[in-house]
Amino acid sequence: MTSPADPAPTPPPTRRLAAIDLGSNSFHLLVANYQEERLQVVARQGEKVQLAAGLDDEGLLDEATMQRALDCLARFAPFVADIAPGQLRVVGTNALRDAANSEALIERAEALLGCRVEIIAGREEARLIYLGAAHALAEEGRRLIVDIGGGSTEFIIGERFEPQALESLRMGCVTFTRRFFDGGEITEKRMRRAELAALSELANIRRHYLALGWEDPVGSSGTIKAAAAVIHAAGDGPEGVITRQGLTALRERLIKCKRLDRVSLEGLKPDRARVFPAGIAVLGAIFEAFDLDQMRFADGALREGVLYDMAGRNSPEDSRLKSLELLERRYGVDARQAGNVAATAGALLGQVRDAWGLDDDQARFLAWGARLHEIGLAISHSQFHRHGAYLLEHSDLAGFSRPEQRLLAFLVRAHRRKFPLREWQALPASVHSSHARLARLLRLAVLLNHSRPEQPPAPPRLDADGEALRLTLPGGDDPMLLLTDLEQECAYQQAAGFSLELAPA
Amino acid sequence: MTSPADPAPTPPPTRRLAAIDLGSNSFHLLVANYQEERLQVVARQGEKVQLAAGLDDEGLLDEATMQRALDCLARFAPFVADIAPGQLRVVGTNALRDAANSEALIERAEALLGCRVEIIAGREEARLIYLGAAHALAEEGRRLIVDIGGGSTEFIIGERFEPQALESLRMGCVTFTRRFFDGGEITEKRMRRAELAALSELANIRRHYLALGWEDPVGSSGTIKAAAAVIHAAGDGPEGVITRQGLTALRERLIKCKRLDRVSLEGLKPDRARVFPAGIAVLGAIFEAFDLDQMRFADGALREGVLYDMAGRNSPEDSRLKSLELLERRYGVDARQAGNVAATAGALLGQVRDAWGLDDDQARFLAWGARLHEIGLAISHSQFHRHGAYLLEHSDLAGFSRPEQRLLAFLVRAHRRKFPLREWQALPASVHSSHARLARLLRLAVLLNHSRPEQPPAPPRLDADGEALRLTLPGGDDPMLLLTDLEQECAYQQAAGFSLELAPA
Repeated sequence: MTSPADPAPTPPPTRRLAAIDLGSNSFHLLVANYQEERLQVVARQGEKVQLAAGLDDEGLLDEATMQRALDCLARFAPFVADIAPGQLRVVGTNALRDAANSEALIERAEALLGCRVEIIAGREEARLIYLGAAHALAEEGRRLIVDIGGGSTEFIIGERFEPQALESLRMGCVTFTRRFFDGGEITEKRMRRAELAALSELANIRRHYLALGWEDPVGSSGTIKAAAAVIHAAGDGPEGVITRQGLTALRERLIKCKRLDRVSLEGLKPDRARVFPAGIAVLGAIFEAFDLDQMRFADGALREGVLYDMAGRNSPEDSRLKSLELLERRYGVDARQAGNVAATAGALLGQVRDAWGLDDDQARFLAWGARLHEIGLAISHSQFHRHGAYLLEHSDLAGFSRPEQRLLAFLVRAHRRKFPLREWQALPASVHSSHARLARLLRLAVLLNHSRPEQPPAPPRLDADGEALRLTLPGGDDPMLLLTDLEQECAYQQAAGFSLELAPA
Repeated sequence: MTSPADPAPTPPPTRRLAAIDLGSNSFHLLVANYQEERLQVVARQGEKVQLAAGLDDEGLLDEATMQRALDCLARFAPFVADIAPGQLRVVGTNALRDAANSEALIERAEALLGCRVEIIAGREEARLIYLGAAHALAEEGRRLIVDIGGGSTEFIIGERFEPQALESLRMGCVTFTRRFFDGGEITEKRMRRAELAALSELANIRRHYLALGWEDPVGSSGTIKAAAAVIHAAGDGPEGVITRQGLTALRERLIKCKRLDRVSLEGLKPDRARVFPAGIAVLGAIFEAFDLDQMRFADGALREGVLYDMAGRNSPEDSRLKSLELLERRYGVDARQAGNVAATAGALLGQVRDAWGLDDDQARFLAWGARLHEIGLAISHSQFHRHGAYLLEHSDLAGFSRPEQRLLAFLVRAHRRKFPLREWQALPASVHSSHARLARLLRLAVLLNHSRPEQPPAPPRLDADGEALRLTLPGGDDPMLLLTDLEQECAYQQAAGFSLELAPA
């Protein structure tokens, strides 16, 4: 019996999510509603910016390419203007990983879009691609997913939503066009050189992948979609499937075109023609290395993966938590001590949270920094804060963007001894203030747990006045020892231009 | 029945071994005959060079101190002039680890002694100290060994010859004299500040060590020997034992001396007097942190450990092999691939060994570099040669000296992509040629195993003419792929100034 006061059944909450993928060949925008674990696409845009083609010999993006990229983002911007903070993620891949001056583009892009732009590592890209493709594929069984990008090609073997192997190789349709077809000619020799270079990259993963095996090879990028379309149009295969025989015939047709500017095939969009032969060389090498008979095209790629990943963020499946656990295990972290430091850091943060305007996300990273601050001990006790920072800066950490890894690395780098001014100044200006605040809280939490107690100490009172901190001295087992540590800490903070005052209890 | 032709029983072989220990307070020389697993001391020398006292605020050793060090080594040199190559080891510890200009001293010392001088890491120092002390102690049971040096203090818990915990803390009688007694006054306050600083360092290891526990605390350095002697002379303890009560009384007596230059106690050599109060502060903090009632002095320290270590080198117990296994396990090395590369590298080295004058030790390091070349993959596939080099450069690897670690790090750094000219040029001139040769052999071995075969390929013919290499192309499954790789390698080597020529089979 339903009383009149009963509310109507609540509709499941809807989140609007958006992703922008700054690929080496194309930029893509995807806006979708997320409801009941499904994405409903609201808007989809793509432009061939060809970022990788704009890299000069010094690895610098030229101004024309930057402008092309920014013009494209200006067209994307209205689609994401009303997306809530935290529901839009903008990721850059290989060309931005490689560009020595990517910061310049990123700063302007961030200003234009009003949100952070993250460069993600190759394996993280592979993980997101798999997440996107896995949601698009209904079938059971083990699958190989291949995504030929402009500057990198990702290879993932997985079942359901669990990747078992993730690799990103440095080969793509834009960079290989530059390397092997720079004069514009298409010859048998050039095709073979490009294929051999791809085979050389593939040799790094071939045996491992063959040993894992798969039932269903799937491709998920523009090159593969176009290849399937051209082969189907030529009558060499069913719709959406690349057959080996169709691919061989396509290769011959491309060589007969003789020049990139004469490539014109039924099913191929003109704006892909220039980079298509290089893409087919890479695809041919993949068929050769893995001895494939056919490959199916499936929609759903990096940008879909980004949305599914965002939808799952901060939930128990959060892949970042799995990455943290992996680090803790591999480097044998003393979990009790790390947990105690995290508890103290959290209690200190709670007291200055409002004064310093710190949000949940920053609190989470402070706790994660505390959990990981001793991982460098596995390398050596001497300078272990530096070793830990190195590991966090360079490890492939699924789920983490580069700026997030850099924050963790900075917290670990800064947690003991002198405050690392040089590393701090190298951070982007936008995070200067917040990163230093988090680092100062972690430093105090580490000192308060210096004697490695079984339980974290009762957190002392901490007040913030602007950047100045005032810590009320706690009691405890050995107050003189703590005082020695804290006096040294006052000197360290002062040397870095921060004020830390100790007040008697 | 013994026939007249029977030879007399062969006496067990005798090796003459020598070690020089360039400590932060004292330099020591030890020459001994090693026979039937025992050392018989032939010569023993020690001088208080006080290296750590000569470090200025910039961390530079001043010229006077360098000269003092070299004068001392000139006096040691005649004792080691007739030691066979490979039977003399010269190790530097904390002060040389810290000195920014230690290279300058090391070069001059190497010229004077005609052998390499190695700076060893803190945990390696601790391991060697334990090895020396463990041979000097007959008793069974778990022991704590403490060695208060001039710039660092080592703490080891172990049983028989197996250390269970090794730590090196940055505190010592010379550096603490500088930090806490720089005006020459000895006061209660200064003693306490020095003790608190030591307690702060000890807090890092205290709980872990207490949890491991021990039956027998033993000290093995000049500070501890002197403390035992002074306490015994005062009637506050039996010979060779520091009692807690005797230590407390000694502390009071030192404060009553008021100034370092007035410290004069029965049992104390005048040349130790200046650094004795700081040493007693460190020792007092150790008693306090570990709640000790007494500590026994035992002879046998770093230099004895160096000799026992040398005696055991290249035997199955070689602690370096254990270190390599630990790395392979922690970073999950693909043992088959590493073994294949090592086999190929060995076969290539065999062909140019005479032309390039490579010895057994270099062959061993090439094999070890091959075993470890992929450890950086555990961090990230991208730039894994750099990550592997970082791990090898910075890890505490028992049994390896710094130059040995640097060789492994260089081989791993150089094993793929561009030849690292900058890192190569940063190596000491004496190893330039040999390290580059080993790296070039490893690079070829990696390429020849690029496709990760089950068995290493039949090694192709390799000839060396000066620095120029000529490789006869092998056959194999995919000769075109290998040719692509090798042509790229010729370009890489040429860019680094090396000649690599490919000859048809």
